[in-house]
Amino acid sequence: MASDAEPTAVKKSSALHRQYDWLRGYGPAVFSEDLVAAIIVTILLVPQALAYALLAGLPPKAGIYASIFPLAIYALFGSSRQLSVGPTAVVSLMTAAAIATIPEGQRLVSAAALALMTGGFMLIFGLLKSGFIMNFVSRPVVSAYITGAAVLIIISQLRHIFGVSSDGQTALSLMQTLLSNVGDAKSVTMLIGGGSILTLWAVKKYLAYGLYKIFHLKPTTARIITRIAPIFVVGLCIALSAGLDLSGRFGLRVVGDIPAGLPNFAIPALSLVAYEALLIPALVIAVVAFVDSMTIAQTLGARSRTRVDADKELLGLGASNVMAGLTAGYPVNGSLSRSAVNFSAGAQTPIASILAAAFMALTALLLTPYLTALPLATLAALIIVACFSMMEFKNLWRTWVYSRTDGLTAVATFLAVLLVGVQWGVLVGVVLAMALHIRATLKPHMARVGRFPGTEHYRDAERFNVETDPAVITLRIDESLYYANARYLEDKVARLVVEFPEVTDLILMCPAVNKIDASALSSLHEINKRLMSANVRLHISELHSHVRERLHRSDFIDQLTGQIFLSQHEAMETLRSEPDWSQFSDHIDMH
Amino acid sequence: MASDAEPTAVKKSSALHRQYDWLRGYGPAVFSEDLVAAIIVTILLVPQALAYALLAGLPPKAGIYASIFPLAIYALFGSSRQLSVGPTAVVSLMTAAAIATIPEGQRLVSAAALALMTGGFMLIFGLLKSGFIMNFVSRPVVSAYITGAAVLIIISQLRHIFGVSSDGQTALSLMQTLLSNVGDAKSVTMLIGGGSILTLWAVKKYLAYGLYKIFHLKPTTARIITRIAPIFVVGLCIALSAGLDLSGRFGLRVVGDIPAGLPNFAIPALSLVAYEALLIPALVIAVVAFVDSMTIAQTLGARSRTRVDADKELLGLGASNVMAGLTAGYPVNGSLSRSAVNFSAGAQTPIASILAAAFMALTALLLTPYLTALPLATLAALIIVACFSMMEFKNLWRTWVYSRTDGLTAVATFLAVLLVGVQWGVLVGVVLAMALHIRATLKPHMARVGRFPGTEHYRDAERFNVETDPAVITLRIDESLYYANARYLEDKVARLVVEFPEVTDLILMCPAVNKIDASALSSLHEINKRLMSANVRLHISELHSHVRERLHRSDFIDQLTGQIFLSQHEAMETLRSEPDWSQFSDHIDMH
Repeated sequence: MASDAEPTAVKKSSALHRQYDWLRGYGPAVFSEDLVAAIIVTILLVPQALAYALLAGLPPKAGIYASIFPLAIYALFGSSRQLSVGPTAVVSLMTAAAIATIPEGQRLVSAAALALMTGGFMLIFGLLKSGFIMNFVSRPVVSAYITGAAVLIIISQLRHIFGVSSDGQTALSLMQTLLSNVGDAKSVTMLIGGGSILTLWAVKKYLAYGLYKIFHLKPTTARIITRIAPIFVVGLCIALSAGLDLSGRFGLRVVGDIPAGLPNFAIPALSLVAYEALLIPALVIAVVAFVDSMTIAQTLGARSRTRVDADKELLGLGASNVMAGLTAGYPVNGSLSRSAVNFSAGAQTPIASILAAAFMALTALLLTPYLTALPLATLAALIIVACFSMMEFKNLWRTWVYSRTDGLTAVATFLAVLLVGVQWGVLVGVVLAMALHIRATLKPHMARVGRFPGTEHYRDAERFNVETDPAVITLRIDESLYYANARYLEDKVARLVVEFPEVTDLILMCPAVNKIDASALSSLHEINKRLMSANVRLHISELHSHVRERLHRSDFIDQLTGQIFLSQHEAMETLRSEPDWSQFSDHIDMH
Repeated sequence: MASDAEPTAVKKSSALHRQYDWLRGYGPAVFSEDLVAAIIVTILLVPQALAYALLAGLPPKAGIYASIFPLAIYALFGSSRQLSVGPTAVVSLMTAAAIATIPEGQRLVSAAALALMTGGFMLIFGLLKSGFIMNFVSRPVVSAYITGAAVLIIISQLRHIFGVSSDGQTALSLMQTLLSNVGDAKSVTMLIGGGSILTLWAVKKYLAYGLYKIFHLKPTTARIITRIAPIFVVGLCIALSAGLDLSGRFGLRVVGDIPAGLPNFAIPALSLVAYEALLIPALVIAVVAFVDSMTIAQTLGARSRTRVDADKELLGLGASNVMAGLTAGYPVNGSLSRSAVNFSAGAQTPIASILAAAFMALTALLLTPYLTALPLATLAALIIVACFSMMEFKNLWRTWVYSRTDGLTAVATFLAVLLVGVQWGVLVGVVLAMALHIRATLKPHMARVGRFPGTEHYRDAERFNVETDPAVITLRIDESLYYANARYLEDKVARLVVEFPEVTDLILMCPAVNKIDASALSSLHEINKRLMSANVRLHISELHSHVRERLHRSDFIDQLTGQIFLSQHEAMETLRSEPDWSQFSDHIDMH
């Protein structure tokens, strides 16, 4: 999203969203709306924070810590009013991949260091006004990436549903280890896990409709109740687990003790080498988290008719991640589900998020004893059901139908996430999309032209009945010349010389050439040299003045065997009137 | 170099180079010319084969083996008549990097496996007609890559000049280990190494000129003598080393025993896992070797007025590398120095290369005892002096002066080679060049237009005095819409809606939109949805029919809140005449 000034004199000051203009006129009425939204978001956030920490391979407290200060800091510095920041599925999976090879004792501090560096990258990008980087990630890549990550997450969480262990960073290795252990599956764990999935799925699918149809609730209310309903499933599972001592009697794995209290502020104590090893994962997470959050923020912004500024967004997310790093959390970004709830529950200002952060702090201080008996299988069920709605197979199919190129990019991204690893998917997609776009421009459109009889107009010799000359050939280039298409020009000229052995002068007519980059300049040099060794002069006509000026920075014009003509007609008139030319041409014609 | 058929009916059969047409009329005269060229190339190749094997971290025989069958096979299958294939500096360095972490006992077989896979990739690319991949590597990237590799090679060979050890894959690590060992430098080794460098350098710089000026030799003869002069330096160093027993008395490191004989044909015996580990290096070497060889072949082809076919070239190089893999060699490609000598020594046909291969086989059978005493310092000197002419700093400076974008790509490539490793340089350069090209297209040109009074023409409202309407706004899009510029359109529309709060209808006028990819389609969907929630209808005018047809593959046109108009004027006439419109507009104007 480019934020540069437009030539248009837009009245930005009055129109565009300003950071703190909501502070004016803030009163009890708005506060009560924010409070309700905050309570609802917190109810959603508590189990999610625990679940995503599990997904990231971290102790539950990391999820809670990542939901306190980062949430509040984003509210202060971010540019979207409704975006709810904290632990999310995809970034948790990427964190898990980044710290997978680190010894268990070091993982917590490494995750915090990762958040610190992720935030650092975002701040740097924001200060450099590099919000445009999101334009490099095409929609099919985002879709395929999220879908692939969702499938990978589901596969990784199956171990908690079966109560066995599995290991690996790719779909294949996870499946392989899971299948070799599935004989040890625990029936109670499977009952809790399977039951949770079915209940959560049914709630998500039918509850809102039921409340609306049967109890005649307002659609918004029905939707909000549906969103927070998972807390009742969580409560039921805790009650079952604790009441029947499922953990002690049937080996059901549970969350266990979570130390009560708030995190200390500290820079994660890791060696420089350990920080360096996290550099690339942090960079990839920074890009993915930013693109993901921006997409959500733009959707919410459109509904509330406010504009989201990509560079400001980078600063807000960056500050939030730095805070996550300093308070023993792990990388965070905008959550679609919580932001949507926040918005539809009526959050008016960022105060809603600050209140939610305060409630999370209270949870950390007071509620952790009540979460001890929460089964991991229930958390895994929460994650799996959340992943169902992340999968965009229908969208990917539509992309494939619409465009094979985009479809190919999407398939490659999806497979890269599943088979190579989650951190590679976006890279594969971005590079492939760039390459396919450039691939489509490898052959610049060009045509041999001749004079339209009786006029000064020059047209395609293949299509029109025009006057051509076997000794003076004109090739019109219809596009800018740059590295990917320059060699095609070399080839085209080489073919022309072979096709017209009588040629003595070649004119490149450049009415549409807006740019000649260093590679294209090099190709022109080569063409000039090669034509010289074949006794053919190279001329150029109708070159834009700014392109010609740039050519003067090199010695190309000095080396040119022929001339530069302002107009094509001037070129033809000059070259035809040369005394040598007709003589030489006659000589050749005699063959 | 695209090889697809052109619409033009070029008489290819008569004009273009055919693989074996040189066989017709081959006789004693041509043979004697080929023979002379073969002898001269062999004289150059023997020391180079040993030197590049040293650079690759392989025993000398690997270099000799890589110069026998691969050379002959390329002559049979390659498309360039003069290209001389075999061990070269850059590919040797890349081989060294690829096998650096492999235990010493496994390196020889791993290098052969690497060649086999490199050849495999080239054959696959050739069969898939993927010669176009070379268009992704811009000239500044090639220049910077070769220059960076030359600097890295010189640094890596300094250990042999000083007679100490150094280790590492980057300039920094090599320098660090070299400096920490430099106290053990051996004076005799330094004398031999330094003396060789100075002599070789002086020969290269002044011998041709001296022979021409003082002995009045023909320039071509002078140049050829200069090219083969290094063999005398090598001979002198062998004589000194053997005669004075420098190895025994002063610890001068020498080539040592080379087993006489020819290689056995065998598939390199490595585990599948070991092959897999070499996959990425093989792919990178395949691309670099191909681009490098093509550049040389094109230059030679231009001089002899023959065209080089990229896809055939891939097959020739591929077969050559596969053969290198099967005969205990290592990856090979076209050598600039030997190809140039081959060409100027008068090689007429590929028979010259086959003869040179036969001479190398004789060397392997008979001459190895005479090479035992050859000092490694002399080989390092050969490599270093060869690298002097690979460095293109002047060219890079010219690139920087000509274009900052290209300059930046070159600097990044150069630094990546030196500081990250030789295998990363090209990747960094290619990706950066793509990204910077796409970066330049992030903001499609678009303008709000109005009617030129009294006509049906619509012009830029910022530049012309045209009739506009605050309720019906037209945005003309002047470029194709694709993923990198689609979000800019979203932003532009969002700004327009903020700037003109009275707007009820927005028309996107698309006379120059030749393509709408899946991302752009998604943006149009978003714009449509967002405008709908703001009570603004979206219309489209002047869309090309093939773009409109493609849109029908999606549900966009069904979802569109407004209409699709063939012409902009039709759109304005229709929307202005709607009864609701003026009423609504008046209502808004009252605010």
